[in-house]
Amino acid sequence: MTDTSASAGEAAVRATIARATIADVARASGVSTTTVSHVLTGKRPVAAATRDRVQAAVVELHYRPNHVARNLRVGSSQMIAVVVPDITNPFYAQLTRGLADALGSDYGTWVCNTDGSAGRERQYVSDVLARGADGLVVASVERDSARASAPTRFDIPVVCLGESIDHPLVDRVIAADSEASRSAVEHLVARGARRVAMISGPVTHGQSRVAGYHEALDEAGLRVSRQLNVHGDWTRAGGRGAMHRLMRTPHPPDAVFCANDLMAIGALDAARELDLRLPEDVRLVGFDDIEAASLVSPALTTIANPAYETGWSAGKLVLDRLQGRHSGSRRTVVLPCRLIVRETS
Amino acid sequence: MTDTSASAGEAAVRATIARATIADVARASGVSTTTVSHVLTGKRPVAAATRDRVQAAVVELHYRPNHVARNLRVGSSQMIAVVVPDITNPFYAQLTRGLADALGSDYGTWVCNTDGSAGRERQYVSDVLARGADGLVVASVERDSARASAPTRFDIPVVCLGESIDHPLVDRVIAADSEASRSAVEHLVARGARRVAMISGPVTHGQSRVAGYHEALDEAGLRVSRQLNVHGDWTRAGGRGAMHRLMRTPHPPDAVFCANDLMAIGALDAARELDLRLPEDVRLVGFDDIEAASLVSPALTTIANPAYETGWSAGKLVLDRLQGRHSGSRRTVVLPCRLIVRETS
Repeated sequence: MTDTSASAGEAAVRATIARATIADVARASGVSTTTVSHVLTGKRPVAAATRDRVQAAVVELHYRPNHVARNLRVGSSQMIAVVVPDITNPFYAQLTRGLADALGSDYGTWVCNTDGSAGRERQYVSDVLARGADGLVVASVERDSARASAPTRFDIPVVCLGESIDHPLVDRVIAADSEASRSAVEHLVARGARRVAMISGPVTHGQSRVAGYHEALDEAGLRVSRQLNVHGDWTRAGGRGAMHRLMRTPHPPDAVFCANDLMAIGALDAARELDLRLPEDVRLVGFDDIEAASLVSPALTTIANPAYETGWSAGKLVLDRLQGRHSGSRRTVVLPCRLIVRETS
Repeated sequence: MTDTSASAGEAAVRATIARATIADVARASGVSTTTVSHVLTGKRPVAAATRDRVQAAVVELHYRPNHVARNLRVGSSQMIAVVVPDITNPFYAQLTRGLADALGSDYGTWVCNTDGSAGRERQYVSDVLARGADGLVVASVERDSARASAPTRFDIPVVCLGESIDHPLVDRVIAADSEASRSAVEHLVARGARRVAMISGPVTHGQSRVAGYHEALDEAGLRVSRQLNVHGDWTRAGGRGAMHRLMRTPHPPDAVFCANDLMAIGALDAARELDLRLPEDVRLVGFDDIEAASLVSPALTTIANPAYETGWSAGKLVLDRLQGRHSGSRRTVVLPCRLIVRETS
């Protein structure tokens, strides 16, 4: 786990952070402290222009309320809410378990499912704040929904999972996807692969996984035909179709890196249909390490997403603020992913 | 979904249930209503002998507090707690999602993981009550831990998943495991199997699945050697070992029913090692429908445990009481399981 400040500039202002008060914010935005308080708590309506000015000052001064004082003052529900697309997705179940373990018996874990809907995400964030949760952990699927649900109130700690909320008052936990993809491709090259294809997701998603693939090829001095870069749709059927397309090209790949395990399992189906032996005829690596990755045959080499550790780190970031160990500006925790070598590579 | 009262006797006392008051309980146990209230709310200590007498009267009279009145009186945390062994087990993730969907935006879902420890279960139940949750849903793994955590306070609705808590004030949601096992074996017999083996769990667990297997064989007039009933330990390795043992018997089975999918996937490994074709040489059925069941090759015929529906029903039972639609004695909801025919049978 690495705790990095996002920029040198941010680090430079750290010294002043703990000292910015609500009076400083009021002065900077030219309003009363009562108005600042209304903007921060959201309990009274404030004209949009005034609100924007106060929020700009909050950001500028890195104002951060003292959560310990708040808890003593207003009491506490002893609940931390976690907003995820769907708890039945094993990644989010692991993440929630990590969060709950980090919180221990101090705080309960309140699970909210959005099904990836920006509207439901916004509604949950608003409910969670209204019902007095002590902290909020948000896994936004898309940048657009995240922008909508970025809190306009700062009276509880908020942690964003991934990079979708870019806000100086919101802590972040990020998985090192790009580095992981690079290590997967390096592994394939080390085993002798020279024509490494990639089955990625739709064009607009998972770009860091694609970036790591290209970096590793560049470093190894390998150039591959653009025909070896194909898109799937994250599904098993999509992976199967993509693998068939790859194998029909004039110079088919000797290794395939898939941006998720479901597509890799689809590629495995296609390999079976084409009587290809793995890893002799073609090597295969997935991403995510879903339960099925170790249960299919041959067992899938893949990358374990640090789901549990992500939730655990988010819990620790929230607790740090609630228990007074941190009250400064944004922290970013970057978690490594782990390559798990099984039978397909 | 079937709503059945547990016995005719229970049904007979229903008329009196709604009318038992806290004064009736006080009279029957020879204490003041204040003392009854202390026992029910747990807010003040009461001598053990007195507490036992009050609790006996509560049970005897089927006293049930009016939860709607309580919520109006004491306010409410708007949280329902669900105590499960581990949210990362897909069964419990589905169950939690079903519960959350049933609760909608009225109540939040508070997840507690016990790892199957009776001590942690007891601790969580006590925490949940102390922090003012509005309802409690408990999935106890073993009867012993359930006995320990059966609530001694009745001021919020409690639902037990499975049959581990047998208490007249606790609603229950039960999956029809035995009927599902029977239908799996009937399916194998209908496809021509005559020597149907079973790989069950350890001797003390999952007896209803074993019972359904024997019932179906009896009904079909098939007698199988006791060598065809073997025990696994719920793991893939255990299933593989059990399958090898079965196939070494003098008259090996033409079909194998496994008490869970992981053991069935292990049996699939063994079949592959023995060059057996499925379903031509041997038919195979699992239980649970984990994600991997449809992803292994050949895809596993199995039984879908109604995990989502279980959580959903539990949520509805809690809401019925909180919103005043039910205030009487225990209800038991029995949910059917569904046979999913894929390639191994």
